[in-house]
Amino acid sequence: MGKTEERLAALGLTLPPPLSLPPGVKLTFPWVRVHRNRAYISGHGPQNDDGSLAGPFGKVGGEVSLEDGQQAARLAALAMIASLKRELGELDRVSAWLRIFGMVSSAPDFQQQPLVINGCTDLIVEVFGPERGGHARSAVGMAALPFGLPVELEAEVAIDD
Amino acid sequence: MGKTEERLAALGLTLPPPLSLPPGVKLTFPWVRVHRNRAYISGHGPQNDDGSLAGPFGKVGGEVSLEDGQQAARLAALAMIASLKRELGELDRVSAWLRIFGMVSSAPDFQQQPLVINGCTDLIVEVFGPERGGHARSAVGMAALPFGLPVELEAEVAIDD
Amino acid sequence: MGKTEERLAALGLTLPPPLSLPPGVKLTFPWVRVHRNRAYISGHGPQNDDGSLAGPFGKVGGEVSLEDGQQAARLAALAMIASLKRELGELDRVSAWLRIFGMVSSAPDFQQQPLVINGCTDLIVEVFGPERGGHARSAVGMAALPFGLPVELEAEVAIDD
Repeated sequence: MGKTEERLAALGLTLPPPLSLPPGVKLTFPWVRVHRNRAYISGHGPQNDDGSLAGPFGKVGGEVSLEDGQQAARLAALAMIASLKRELGELDRVSAWLRIFGMVSSAPDFQQQPLVINGCTDLIVEVFGPERGGHARSAVGMAALPFGLPVELEAEVAIDD
Repeated sequence: MGKTEERLAALGLTLPPPLSLPPGVKLTFPWVRVHRNRAYISGHGPQNDDGSLAGPFGKVGGEVSLEDGQQAARLAALAMIASLKRELGELDRVSAWLRIFGMVSSAPDFQQQPLVINGCTDLIVEVFGPERGGHARSAVGMAALPFGLPVELEAEVAIDD
Repeated sequence: MGKTEERLAALGLTLPPPLSLPPGVKLTFPWVRVHRNRAYISGHGPQNDDGSLAGPFGKVGGEVSLEDGQQAARLAALAMIASLKRELGELDRVSAWLRIFGMVSSAPDFQQQPLVINGCTDLIVEVFGPERGGHARSAVGMAALPFGLPVELEAEVAIDD
């Protein structure tokens, strides 16, 4: 077990299995696209332990509270890490997080997207440490997200081996 | 003619000419920015054969149907390929699609952005093949897009020559 | 003083100090993430000369006019340049702008996001010149942005030293 997974275990964190999509939905792109020393991570939402998309669903600042939005961002970050693990085999291969784009399905007057996406940023830094886990970030308000997700994340990491 | 363009021809696909902007609009950035082994593709919308922006215009899930949204995503993907062809000269220079960010102008309750953007993803994979054409992807709902476009795409590809 | 800063001075432009966040907001990510020959720039909004976020706040096409949106995009571009200067020490290290993602908090029917983000694009090209400053760009409409900002920009630049 690499040091990143030891850290996950020490934090009591479990990675979710691959996403089970809602019936009738077919997606043909990879969750992680690796090319040379980069891994590009497709949009991920929060997942339950059985791989299904995790609720509550809706817009943050509307049906979904700030706290539930933060938890969704944390779960979506775990889902990204799980996809990286499946693609790379070993999370220690991630040498640096580079960029995370944090999308919050937002009620028209909701303005606290940064606090929501801190749920993701804080987890990534906790697991990978401030040096490897630091990343450029935007946290912005979307009109709508797939399946009614409150939060979706996409990202780019460096793998320098 | 390179193999990618042979494939386009075999599929009966024609690339649109450069975008003719609506009167009074001036844009000073390049449609494709090449730097060393990367090409960054600016936001593209669907185009008609004469280079004008293609309708229907409006929000998907509102004035624009799911099917029309998918067709818009397909046309926007063709517009990106056309810009790449003009910039690179030869589409075979694209060694890998890396990332496509699929933006769908969405009615507030529309949740099927992934099905819309499949119109793009499926075309790229058809033309470039699953290996070169595979890409990380997000498909998300925007409050509004320029000129009332229902779909806009931005992307990044590798050119390893 | 490098040639980029000479150009800033010749244009009469002053870079703002680091962002002073509204009370109670804590952000733990870097404004610029440098990794090898890339700098990834986090989402930036317009700033006043004292480092506070600059108004007017609200949605462009609603409370905020097109002209005020353009000025916000110009100020947000200056804030990105200021963060790059603090991180890189010397702006001449930027060898090429690659990609700018221009986000405009938009009233539902606002469609002139490209004209708003021209406020950024024109400034970057003025300061860095068309060769170094050229960039792929999208200009799109968000449902909401942090703190009620009318414009937010994220970007990626090459540093080839």
